Amino acid sequence: MAVKKIGTQTIKLKNPPSILETATITGSKEGEGPLGQYFDVILSDDLYGEESWEKAESKMTREAVKLAINKANLHPDNIDYMFSGDLLNQIISSSFAARELQIPFFGLYGACSTMTESLSLSSMIIDGGYADYVIAATSSHFASAERQYRFPLEYGGQRPPTSQWTVTGAGAALLSSSGNGPYITYVTTGRVMDFGVKDANNMGAAMAPAAADTILRHFKDTGFNPNDYDIIITGDLGKVGKELAVELVKKGGYDISNIYTDCGVEIFDLSEQDVHSGASGCGCSAVVFCGYLYKQLKAGRFKRILLISTGALLSPTSSQQGESIPGIAHAVAIERSV
Amino acid sequence: MAVKKIGTQTIKLKNPPSILETATITGSKEGEGPLGQYFDVILSDDLYGEESWEKAESKMTREAVKLAINKANLHPDNIDYMFSGDLLNQIISSSFAARELQIPFFGLYGACSTMTESLSLSSMIIDGGYADYVIAATSSHFASAERQYRFPLEYGGQRPPTSQWTVTGAGAALLSSSGNGPYITYVTTGRVMDFGVKDANNMGAAMAPAAADTILRHFKDTGFNPNDYDIIITGDLGKVGKELAVELVKKGGYDISNIYTDCGVEIFDLSEQDVHSGASGCGCSAVVFCGYLYKQLKAGRFKRILLISTGALLSPTSSQQGESIPGIAHAVAIERSV
Repeated sequence: MAVKKIGTQTIKLKNPPSILETATITGSKEGEGPLGQYFDVILSDDLYGEESWEKAESKMTREAVKLAINKANLHPDNIDYMFSGDLLNQIISSSFAARELQIPFFGLYGACSTMTESLSLSSMIIDGGYADYVIAATSSHFASAERQYRFPLEYGGQRPPTSQWTVTGAGAALLSSSGNGPYITYVTTGRVMDFGVKDANNMGAAMAPAAADTILRHFKDTGFNPNDYDIIITGDLGKVGKELAVELVKKGGYDISNIYTDCGVEIFDLSEQDVHSGASGCGCSAVVFCGYLYKQLKAGRFKRILLISTGALLSPTSSQQGESIPGIAHAVAIERSV
Repeated sequence: MAVKKIGTQTIKLKNPPSILETATITGSKEGEGPLGQYFDVILSDDLYGEESWEKAESKMTREAVKLAINKANLHPDNIDYMFSGDLLNQIISSSFAARELQIPFFGLYGACSTMTESLSLSSMIIDGGYADYVIAATSSHFASAERQYRFPLEYGGQRPPTSQWTVTGAGAALLSSSGNGPYITYVTTGRVMDFGVKDANNMGAAMAPAAADTILRHFKDTGFNPNDYDIIITGDLGKVGKELAVELVKKGGYDISNIYTDCGVEIFDLSEQDVHSGASGCGCSAVVFCGYLYKQLKAGRFKRILLISTGALLSPTSSQQGESIPGIAHAVAIERSV
């Protein structure tokens, strides 16, 4: 009956949606990194003219969505649905953006897995015949995340070497039932995995098992091998989590080491930009995908990629109550042509 | 192209999913209310044997999902997807439940609109051919919500007359591509509406515009009238918000006053149970639907209902920063037979 499902966790899209346009807005640090040239807007002021980090983040989401829609010569009225979420409590960055945009809105929470969660649901909604145009978006902001999850910046807390730097950035992708690609062709939805990591300064290790589980599930469900992809890229495992993911996938019988990397390793220059183990945040895989990867696909330099955004499902309350950090990862395959 | 869409915000499901089973777990106060007889499990201890309110809430979600699956003689392995969210920061109630259940998981955040948000997405995923069995769930807990959004219970804060009482309860609905109904037949997805209400003790007023907007949109998109339904019921507007919603819908040209009520008004005895304006929380429409309404539909006492869960998209941070409270409401039509 579930005619589009293959294996246990993967959907093969019969009418693959085309990614018409994307848009990215990042902070200045992200703009100075090795992928800076691929971002549409680089803020010189991370407050974006607003009175708080949270309002700045919401404005980034709103403006990224508007920019993606404008690039396609469309108007928010033309968009059937918006799928978006973020790290802030009660996803206020996304909700307040959706208030201005007036697009029918499905709020998501997948922590840093949100980019592929929103791409997954947007793809199915278009492929299923429910929508012509859907926006998938997410954001994070270094300063709003630090004060919510760790310490206010003014406190000057020390960061251990395994810690990661939350990306200041918003990405939006406009998907359509028609268009010339790149296309979303497969969706592998993750389960919540927990290997008992309790260190909120080592989220890469907490998320790696979820990433490996979803990658392995994708191969098993589809029959694909690592060499069917030009690049396999996780969301924000950072240097520590990336090594762990390679190991765990190898234990599962697949060697991805040649074509695998992590958005959190690529977005900053790890030796120069003082970000310790790399980047994190919903915005990390959002701007690396909507900026760098999308443009490589569009130009034909990548033919086929597997993007796996990775989320750590902790809250300060769950950590205070002694809980370990569960992770989740959702994968989407994106191809230049179908 | 979006062949299943009618009007601007409504989907007509071609292969309406059947709601196979539901399950509800509530606190003792909800069990003593007028709908107590319709709930599956009524806790005598609102801590549910756990060490914290948050852990108790997550256990309620997990056990409600397991109970719904068990009633259908199925196993969590048989379920294709789980859509769930809750009010807690980073939706830890849902995420930690999904960790135990190991069902591929889409985390949602729609505040108290989550029950119909999860029913909407579950319905489209089944109707679209992506899944045979999907769980839609949500929860709230009076004590975990009070300490996160207002004051810890120990503080003994006074509650103004417009305030509402967060339901302690979890509801889960098991949807399937086959079955004998009731069926979900229409899905109307809301936009974020904001009329400038800033009083976090008057959420009914903050959410009423969103409820009215979605109800009016549903009528316009489908051509239906209020008398096409046996009952039209919002999520948790309470007494104050309910009156406002009737007025706003009347201004839009439809009189729903004869067949309209609100789950937050029905679940408690407002004159006896000291809940001021009524109930609120994701769990409110979840247990009223999965308990009372589902059983009435199953028994044929209702033939056709319109359920509109309503969410207030505030956070303590957005309120502190002077923001008003945006609302959202998603509607699903549920019919005994198709």
